[in-house]
Amino acid sequence: MDIVMDADALNEFLSSEFPQVAAEYRVERVDRSRLMVRLKVGEAHLRPGGTVSGPSIFALADLAVYCAILARIGPVALAVTTNASIDFMRKPEAGKDLIAECRVLKLGRVLAVAEALIYSKGGAEPVARCSMTYSIPPKR
Amino acid sequence: MDIVMDADALNEFLSSEFPQVAAEYRVERVDRSRLMVRLKVGEAHLRPGGTVSGPSIFALADLAVYCAILARIGPVALAVTTNASIDFMRKPEAGKDLIAECRVLKLGRVLAVAEALIYSKGGAEPVARCSMTYSIPPKR
Amino acid sequence: MDIVMDADALNEFLSSEFPQVAAEYRVERVDRSRLMVRLKVGEAHLRPGGTVSGPSIFALADLAVYCAILARIGPVALAVTTNASIDFMRKPEAGKDLIAECRVLKLGRVLAVAEALIYSKGGAEPVARCSMTYSIPPKR
Amino acid sequence: MDIVMDADALNEFLSSEFPQVAAEYRVERVDRSRLMVRLKVGEAHLRPGGTVSGPSIFALADLAVYCAILARIGPVALAVTTNASIDFMRKPEAGKDLIAECRVLKLGRVLAVAEALIYSKGGAEPVARCSMTYSIPPKR
Repeated sequence: MDIVMDADALNEFLSSEFPQVAAEYRVERVDRSRLMVRLKVGEAHLRPGGTVSGPSIFALADLAVYCAILARIGPVALAVTTNASIDFMRKPEAGKDLIAECRVLKLGRVLAVAEALIYSKGGAEPVARCSMTYSIPPKR
Repeated sequence: MDIVMDADALNEFLSSEFPQVAAEYRVERVDRSRLMVRLKVGEAHLRPGGTVSGPSIFALADLAVYCAILARIGPVALAVTTNASIDFMRKPEAGKDLIAECRVLKLGRVLAVAEALIYSKGGAEPVARCSMTYSIPPKR
Repeated sequence: MDIVMDADALNEFLSSEFPQVAAEYRVERVDRSRLMVRLKVGEAHLRPGGTVSGPSIFALADLAVYCAILARIGPVALAVTTNASIDFMRKPEAGKDLIAECRVLKLGRVLAVAEALIYSKGGAEPVARCSMTYSIPPKR
Repeated sequence: MDIVMDADALNEFLSSEFPQVAAEYRVERVDRSRLMVRLKVGEAHLRPGGTVSGPSIFALADLAVYCAILARIGPVALAVTTNASIDFMRKPEAGKDLIAECRVLKLGRVLAVAEALIYSKGGAEPVARCSMTYSIPPKR
């Protein structure tokens, strides 16, 4: 599974295709084994009490998996999530960005499976884990 | 599992506790068998092409399950999602609100399990299904 | 989604294709809305203490979903499970068979999604819930 | 999370508590980061065509997670699975045992979360991945 889009290419793609959310995220690293994305945590992501909301963590995992697949199949693909399973394990630390660390487990002709661990920036224990299946559109 | 908060009480609770998101949702019906919540779909929920985003559907399911649990245990509880599994099955219809129809399968001392089907308003086939586990805080 | 295999046809198919397990199960009812399968609980399904084991409940849910898909696409298909999510909610009653009640939520060209609730025979509350995705083989 | 039961202790525990299944499995390695269990694949685990069945893979993952938790909390505990999510990604190789490699992500007071990757013995790519939540019984 060669990498065909690096972190810069992915960030540019997000900015042009998803301008409304791209400013919240930054792909920080891509290689054959791992992709890392940062969520720049802001007011919109917080629950009362200052914790990052579950849906914001889900959105980060989804974006990380999406980028990890695009990194391998290129920017034209219209991949969509078909299944996700997520465990919320710890409260994110207040005032810290979140980092998703994503690994692609299978990149098939029709389906891709990946998993992500989510950490508070600098934290040792994962806040959440997520596995996702994406449907890969047929090549034209 | 008696209902201790009706739709009005839940909507008031959301407005006071989650003012930043409450305007997007409305609990439309609560009884012992079902709870229904509407997501008023707006620009912020859309992906390019006009489809409601996966994270927005996840957030709707999460809110529906949360409300279904509060309807049974009352407004003081600090319940949190511990696990969610979601299947995205069909593209939501453009320009339609989404309706989550939620059913509580178990309300234990420590854990609650519920499932939700998500429909485009007026649609016959579900757009997504979701099951969630919530951790119930111990009574004081 | 017309039904092309009824309960008798499914039971015969199981007997001829999966003789080693078919004796444990019986498809009891199939229609457009529901399929019901019984697990005849025996020693091999029990954990110490007399409870049906988790893997036996998983196997029942898997078989129910498989039959519900075959009921709609016919006996030739080589459908395989790609994803399953299961919640174990209550202890099955000792000495009772288990009933899986399965509903197909989507039958696409490539993927099918179904869910099953598992009950102790005669019980009112579900023992477990399961959702599964099956990959449908391409038509020849 | 100190290890309080090593591989030998776990294998002895399985033999005495689950004599009907213990012969199929062997815990091969336990340390703070990983636990590995082998499923000795036999006729009973196969589907027509010689592939290991989905429920057999589920049972292996379940046993691996159970052992990984016992390795940390000791043999007396009556932990039970509350949730599992599994992705079946590749066909196991015919005639090979399966290896589950399990990692504990959280060991809380009430819930434990772990994940397992399943490989055909000697294979480089995982056959399946599974994440599970166990409920930990209160200390007496």
